[in-house]
Amino acid sequence: MEFSSRLLENAVYEMSQLPGIGKRTALRLVLHLLKQPEEQSQRLSDTLLRLRKDIKTCTNCHNISDQPLCAICSNPKREEGLVCVVEDIRDVMAIENTGQYRGLYHVLGGKISPIQGIGPQHLTISSLVEKVANGAVQELIFALGSTMEGDTTNFYIYKQLEAFDIKTSTIARGISVGDELEYADEVTLGRSIVNRVPFENSLRST
Amino acid sequence: MEFSSRLLENAVYEMSQLPGIGKRTALRLVLHLLKQPEEQSQRLSDTLLRLRKDIKTCTNCHNISDQPLCAICSNPKREEGLVCVVEDIRDVMAIENTGQYRGLYHVLGGKISPIQGIGPQHLTISSLVEKVANGAVQELIFALGSTMEGDTTNFYIYKQLEAFDIKTSTIARGISVGDELEYADEVTLGRSIVNRVPFENSLRST
Repeated sequence: MEFSSRLLENAVYEMSQLPGIGKRTALRLVLHLLKQPEEQSQRLSDTLLRLRKDIKTCTNCHNISDQPLCAICSNPKREEGLVCVVEDIRDVMAIENTGQYRGLYHVLGGKISPIQGIGPQHLTISSLVEKVANGAVQELIFALGSTMEGDTTNFYIYKQLEAFDIKTSTIARGISVGDELEYADEVTLGRSIVNRVPFENSLRST
Repeated sequence: MEFSSRLLENAVYEMSQLPGIGKRTALRLVLHLLKQPEEQSQRLSDTLLRLRKDIKTCTNCHNISDQPLCAICSNPKREEGLVCVVEDIRDVMAIENTGQYRGLYHVLGGKISPIQGIGPQHLTISSLVEKVANGAVQELIFALGSTMEGDTTNFYIYKQLEAFDIKTSTIARGISVGDELEYADEVTLGRSIVNRVPFENSLRST
């Protein structure tokens, strides 16, 4: 792509550094901004910069938060001893949306991935171990995606916590509610049979 | 979507104002920026702001340019009397990429669209008419997309220029090079038969 303007080229280049945004899409976005009032670019620019400069994470659960202690951790109605281990804020938002969970979270900030050069020291695992060592946790729920990296991370944390007397569980994997069995993949269907639950349990959900 | 941070919410909101970017994608982009070094957000922010503040358009063709006269208009090797009318800089880039065009451009900045409230006065049509009135143009090539708006705009300009003695043409519509006839749509195939060209012409292209 050859540009008639260096300013335009720079803006398109920086925009195309975002994941899933190619040069063509970046150009479309930048030209859109040029057609809108200057305030829109100003606001986008300002909010991105302020976010990056002023963003804080909760000292307890490491979730993104404007306060030292996030709204969930500082809520006295939540069960303090129940902690759900998730990858990032998107998982927290997804679980909060269900309205089914009353415990706290622990946001790891990623998954162990040797290929991407992410080791346990890059995540908030030591802070989690410390929390458990202090006796603050009764039950830990692993809720990482069931990929190779997710399983590795779960297992690593599990090993670190073996010495402590806490309950650990993982979220149930199975056929989605409303799905037909014939379209389910074999691994999921297989697991959902091995890990079958008492029928009465299915009656009290939602 | 409920956010645990106002800063995050604002950034996601502003990002989701861009065309084709929903709330979820915006959140993914913003979280990506948070994981990258602060300089990346800084550069993105700066280039967008500088672009919007300092952007100029060529005084002759209205294309985006850092100079008062763009690289194409100031190139003495280009045919000055041949002007191609296009919608925006993306069309200029597409035609330049072919390496087949040696004339100048006139960038309208949009198409006449009563539905979107875009009238002739919002485009650079008067500047084009002025250029023609000054005798600077021998041939005008209409290269707007063949939509209702494109056809309307072409016709509006054509009517404005009827009084002047210049040649007008439009880019050829037809079956794409390499395409099979059986898969072509009827309108395009029909036009390509009506507007058939002497066989010798097909020999000198590219």
